[in-house]
Amino acid sequence: MAGDGVSAPPDVRMRGFADRVPVAQALRWIDARVHRLAAEEIALAAAAGRVLARPIAAPADLPPADTAALDGFAVRAAETLGASDYDPVVLNLTDAAGPLASVSVAMLAAGAALPAGADAILPFELAQAKGKSVEIFAPIAEGAGVLRKAQDIGAGAALFAAGRRMRPADPGLLAGLGIATIGVVRRPRVRLLIAGAKNAMPDADGPILKSLVARDGGLIEGFAADLADRAALAEAIAAPGADLVLVAGRSGTGADDIAPPALADIGTVALHGIALRPGGSAGMGLVGQVPVILLPGAPFACLAAYELFAGRLIRGLGGRAPGFPHWTSGAELAGKIVSTIGVAEFRPVRISGGEKPRAEPLAMPEGGGLAALAEADGFVLVPAAREGYPAGALIRVYLWGEEAETP
Amino acid sequence: MAGDGVSAPPDVRMRGFADRVPVAQALRWIDARVHRLAAEEIALAAAAGRVLARPIAAPADLPPADTAALDGFAVRAAETLGASDYDPVVLNLTDAAGPLASVSVAMLAAGAALPAGADAILPFELAQAKGKSVEIFAPIAEGAGVLRKAQDIGAGAALFAAGRRMRPADPGLLAGLGIATIGVVRRPRVRLLIAGAKNAMPDADGPILKSLVARDGGLIEGFAADLADRAALAEAIAAPGADLVLVAGRSGTGADDIAPPALADIGTVALHGIALRPGGSAGMGLVGQVPVILLPGAPFACLAAYELFAGRLIRGLGGRAPGFPHWTSGAELAGKIVSTIGVAEFRPVRISGGEKPRAEPLAMPEGGGLAALAEADGFVLVPAAREGYPAGALIRVYLWGEEAETP
Repeated sequence: MAGDGVSAPPDVRMRGFADRVPVAQALRWIDARVHRLAAEEIALAAAAGRVLARPIAAPADLPPADTAALDGFAVRAAETLGASDYDPVVLNLTDAAGPLASVSVAMLAAGAALPAGADAILPFELAQAKGKSVEIFAPIAEGAGVLRKAQDIGAGAALFAAGRRMRPADPGLLAGLGIATIGVVRRPRVRLLIAGAKNAMPDADGPILKSLVARDGGLIEGFAADLADRAALAEAIAAPGADLVLVAGRSGTGADDIAPPALADIGTVALHGIALRPGGSAGMGLVGQVPVILLPGAPFACLAAYELFAGRLIRGLGGRAPGFPHWTSGAELAGKIVSTIGVAEFRPVRISGGEKPRAEPLAMPEGGGLAALAEADGFVLVPAAREGYPAGALIRVYLWGEEAETP
Repeated sequence: MAGDGVSAPPDVRMRGFADRVPVAQALRWIDARVHRLAAEEIALAAAAGRVLARPIAAPADLPPADTAALDGFAVRAAETLGASDYDPVVLNLTDAAGPLASVSVAMLAAGAALPAGADAILPFELAQAKGKSVEIFAPIAEGAGVLRKAQDIGAGAALFAAGRRMRPADPGLLAGLGIATIGVVRRPRVRLLIAGAKNAMPDADGPILKSLVARDGGLIEGFAADLADRAALAEAIAAPGADLVLVAGRSGTGADDIAPPALADIGTVALHGIALRPGGSAGMGLVGQVPVILLPGAPFACLAAYELFAGRLIRGLGGRAPGFPHWTSGAELAGKIVSTIGVAEFRPVRISGGEKPRAEPLAMPEGGGLAALAEADGFVLVPAAREGYPAGALIRVYLWGEEAETP
């Protein structure tokens, strides 16, 4: 069995890739595996960034009764008619607890319910309390300073659609309506396996992938490194409990590139070898219904293949928009980008300039590409159909920075 | 004592604000309190989003020795001269463990150190292993497929400046260089106090402020609600342990607006009453050296005053850029915004349209403004000097959504 009608790819070890799958075909394979995970109920305090599984409607009117919109004196507006600085109207100061007696006012704080009989709130600036009476220096219209029952939100009104990603102030709105828990899409459980023997170079892929999985809303369900044995790797991939499995390293054409054969041992390899640079040794397949993404071990290539394929699947399973989550900037290319027709390129760039940003293409990393990670502010994706871009071209840069840093 | 040469503001309870401080003056007060907090050492795994307290230089060369940039056969390039499909060069397949013997090749995985004597990596595609020998079908240049010692990064090279906010892939780079911990700016400890008696309306300010403090990198050091007693509120403000204190509610002109007098009881009120709508009852002061920000209780006003003042202080203390952290979008106003000269307006807007975004101004909330929270995608800040903007004006919208959602 192989995905999308493609026959299972051959073993490429010590032979190299005979041909590579277009990026678009790999994305179709990913998209066919995206289904929104089931809902779970969580406390509002944990809602930040989560995706609503169900729409939310207002359970009650807001405000629940006519209330003061500002601090002041609750009055009968008609009783303030004719008041002026030179000829103030004098009313009795009474308690706000009961209904408002005639020729009386009651002090009220913003948000408090209007006493029966009152129909306006006079700001303190337009009155002066003197013992048990209040001098009023200006007339006020009926309804002024009053927030009517249900004026903000009526019971049953639609607040948020399913699929909304919670924004910072959303928990406040929901708490204000008395909602304590919400139904959200379950976070995808991601198993992260680093294939290969422990060697002199410390693992960079684990930390990169943990960060990116968190960014995309996934939960690391399990982590193991130094998996150099084919059978042990196969067993780690096949263990139950994950919504998807990422294997970093040993995806290439070397004799010790055990990740594709390990996947083939316990599942199916749907695609292996993608027309992408870097990241071309990526692959994907299934164990039962669980997608397994094979990522290259070279850190920059691992990052590229994650951004294009694995992140898309994680975001989609978690109910987020599956496309790139990065903020983008239009920028003028400071130098040309040369790319091979037929191969999509994931190219690191550095951004300079404020109002009119310029993107300086960095050299395509030859090795692990960790230097590119230090220097790059983002990346440009050159489609397979293009030979690149000339200097001066206006391009879209996907940014890795998390904040806008506006002045 | 009062901040910035301004005499302590008068008690406004039941009198109203005689005059209000310009937003710019309040921002100057905030900025005078911003100093970067001390450094703390944390594990790389906890680095996401943190701000570097010190610059980081590479502790070692990367790669530490000449290494294979791709999977293939390590060769002496000169021995492949003249190789072709029709007349392959045949070399001995040997072990990669020791130095490379002459007329020999050794299989190498990408990232592995080159054996002594080897000077190029021949991709598997250009060769075929046959038992103990390997047929080579094309010549290769010296250095091809080799990443030279220190080619990516040289020992001592500057990687990140102090003040860099860690990006998702940064921990991978640092881990790859063998760095396990980093020095970051300590997170500001924020005490959050909700002033006022428990009433029929559930508290919305607490959840809003908790979300925003987390967004801006602060840690909630303590939280208390329903503080209706002036002495109890003063005591809660003055307790040691916080880098700053936020008090939400009871900041206005009502008889029960105890927040400003409570602050005056144990510290100083530097400013109270700001030419801002909504959020005009905000104030700020000090208890010892600890800034205390008084925020209005009405949720939308609370949010506005937080975004302008409190968030700025939290971000600055934590080493982030103090300005708005929101991503912005240029947009065409779908309707006019009318604003009062002399008062800055914080106006909710809804965004529609994709490539050419339009911003629909929402009504300025009259009451708590929770409905505006549900409807708004962001806000526009109308400076005090402007009467507003005409329909069709191009404006900058600050967005609350956390993700770009590019397709």
